[in-house]
Amino acid sequence: MKRSVSFAAVAAVVVSCLSYAGAGLAYPSEWRSWQHVKSMVIPDKAHGLYGFHHVYVHPKALAAYQKGKGYQEGATLVVPFYEVAEGGGAVSQGALLKVAVMKRDKTATETGGWRYGAFDPAGKALELDAKVGCHTCHEAKKDREFVFSEWAP
Amino acid sequence: MKRSVSFAAVAAVVVSCLSYAGAGLAYPSEWRSWQHVKSMVIPDKAHGLYGFHHVYVHPKALAAYQKGKGYQEGATLVVPFYEVAEGGGAVSQGALLKVAVMKRDKTATETGGWRYGAFDPAGKALELDAKVGCHTCHEAKKDREFVFSEWAP
Repeated sequence: MKRSVSFAAVAAVVVSCLSYAGAGLAYPSEWRSWQHVKSMVIPDKAHGLYGFHHVYVHPKALAAYQKGKGYQEGATLVVPFYEVAEGGGAVSQGALLKVAVMKRDKTATETGGWRYGAFDPAGKALELDAKVGCHTCHEAKKDREFVFSEWAP
Repeated sequence: MKRSVSFAAVAAVVVSCLSYAGAGLAYPSEWRSWQHVKSMVIPDKAHGLYGFHHVYVHPKALAAYQKGKGYQEGATLVVPFYEVAEGGGAVSQGALLKVAVMKRDKTATETGGWRYGAFDPAGKALELDAKVGCHTCHEAKKDREFVFSEWAP
């Protein structure tokens, strides 16, 4: 359950970014082939984090992700959000809704050395304020270099 | 919803293998790094398919998987089943329960050219009857070379 809450927290943060202004991060269009870490579902459509979420890590960032530290410049994590389809006793993923991104950038001094971004399914950037909408909550995970989710073997 | 049912069906088949005798398939221990395709949750513990499921495809089998045909000898698909953790409005994956496998093998003439296997989290084979417990249901997907699940962009 602790793991659920942590992942919910990081998801909450990336989604909360969507309503703020500012960004400056390119869409990492190749994320679909990156390492899948774990998944989570928030089935309530009224919830701000509604969706079937996955976490993907760029292959070069995987060792740091597994250790929970040591992220190198350019290390990138992605969380796509899909529709939640329920039926026949199963909860499945539907269409892609949006894609949230964290990328290591030492020039992002106000947000712990990470750039935060969010994109629609076509890769178009959504407005956000990385500091207020994203990093403020990620501060809670300073001991893990501001990354909430953890590797699932 | 159609997609949910199809995936539920394939999951049902691989899990139904677990109670039968016979196997003959090595554990593909490197599956965790393969291409993630999609995921599904069956949260009811009383359901035979209980678990948080992912589908992973070996990189060399990905093109065939995306086309729904053309699987080459040795092509392998894996479906790990994890515990379902519910709390705080989220459904998350817990500990790994078991791993189901399909591997292309032209000598498996009684099961459509696929070997079916299932393993515990340590990689120990579980007993199964590939024909009765697995392939009988997969016959319904002959037009997709007996694979139920489909690529999620």
